[in-house]
Amino acid sequence: MDERILVSPSDLLGDGVFETLHLRPSGPWLLPEHLDRLARSAALLDLPPPPPIDLGGLQARRTGVMRIVYTRNLLHVSVSEISEQVLRERRDGVRVLSADLGVSVGRRPPWSLSAAKSLSYASNFAARRWAARQQADDVIWTSLEGYVLEAPTSSVVWLSGDTLCTVPPAEAGILDGITAGHLLSVAGSVGLRPAFRMITLPELAAADAIWLASSVRGLAEVISLDGVPRGRSPWTPRLLSLLGF
Amino acid sequence: MDERILVSPSDLLGDGVFETLHLRPSGPWLLPEHLDRLARSAALLDLPPPPPIDLGGLQARRTGVMRIVYTRNLLHVSVSEISEQVLRERRDGVRVLSADLGVSVGRRPPWSLSAAKSLSYASNFAARRWAARQQADDVIWTSLEGYVLEAPTSSVVWLSGDTLCTVPPAEAGILDGITAGHLLSVAGSVGLRPAFRMITLPELAAADAIWLASSVRGLAEVISLDGVPRGRSPWTPRLLSLLGF
Repeated sequence: MDERILVSPSDLLGDGVFETLHLRPSGPWLLPEHLDRLARSAALLDLPPPPPIDLGGLQARRTGVMRIVYTRNLLHVSVSEISEQVLRERRDGVRVLSADLGVSVGRRPPWSLSAAKSLSYASNFAARRWAARQQADDVIWTSLEGYVLEAPTSSVVWLSGDTLCTVPPAEAGILDGITAGHLLSVAGSVGLRPAFRMITLPELAAADAIWLASSVRGLAEVISLDGVPRGRSPWTPRLLSLLGF
Repeated sequence: MDERILVSPSDLLGDGVFETLHLRPSGPWLLPEHLDRLARSAALLDLPPPPPIDLGGLQARRTGVMRIVYTRNLLHVSVSEISEQVLRERRDGVRVLSADLGVSVGRRPPWSLSAAKSLSYASNFAARRWAARQQADDVIWTSLEGYVLEAPTSSVVWLSGDTLCTVPPAEAGILDGITAGHLLSVAGSVGLRPAFRMITLPELAAADAIWLASSVRGLAEVISLDGVPRGRSPWTPRLLSLLGF
């Protein structure tokens, strides 16, 4: 991506918020939900409410990644191609390692930004590079207490019998996953019951299927967890189709 | 500061490192130490070693703040004025609140960037805004185990009898404070013994004096801790003078 934008040096300190959306021929997918979360993230960082975003300049009728960045000085919307890696992980699934994040679910500091999609993503990238060094694709973070939290850029979703589950964001102190939340809201139409549940890693490993849910990758099925292979689920194509992928 | 720089949108995700230096008429203070830490931070983020930095364009013979920012796409040096707030805090001290960061000293994740000065500073700013909402100036972070760690933009230094102490960076998993380290290295010249010690908050509160050490503010004496006023120390002007302030 060769795009360049003019910023203030203070915009480089991760002190802002962002959203990443799947740009579809029909328009940016789940746009109102993403704009709502952008505003909630901004409030957590004491930023003013984001101004209305002019999407008129976006090339319509294409597929891509749309990113909205909002700092104290800047509101910027960019569009880029979906990487081959993202398409491959949506199709073929991901090998995932779990790792203790070293933080307590119940003792987040009073200024915690763990529920905000802030621009301070260095640790998220570092976690994924750590996985890549071990021939894995992604990471599932757990808390000091042993609860499953989230992945660096996605939410954890699992199937247990006919119940489709994700982690409750407020209780776990994690980002409110828009793709996961939307999936659960439409799960009834394919005969699944939605549920928000705290879960430990051994319980997750015993689930019938596990996915990482995010806007552009959609659902990436977990095909191995901590080196243990998992069979592909017949639900993966059905749920991807339900999400319009 | 009206300076604007051209960046890639991916530079806005906090995925880089930086250093802030006190620019003096004699040149950037402790420049080799800061360049060394920049390189160590870069390595923790799997960035290539920083290229040599051309300081020829800097206006010499002035006092200010020099910031070096280094990302996967960018190396940028900027100079700005020292804020009135920083000068006031160096002169008059700071009112400090302590707060549990909710992380364990012994259980940092394997990709932890807690020892890197990364650009992902949103939580550091959020912690200081949290303090400001309670009429305080700064925060001292503690670990789940109750150990004193660091402040959002400075190291904790304290005097106990004739021993001048700071927190051991490697053991605590915190940033290696350059100003604090330099201060301890020259403490012998004013008859103080240097020591790196893990300390709990009640032990810190019982110290003869406490300071927050950083490059531009220098030493800011802690004049109240969690609402309890502390008398000014005769060592504050001596140590500031020792640091060339």
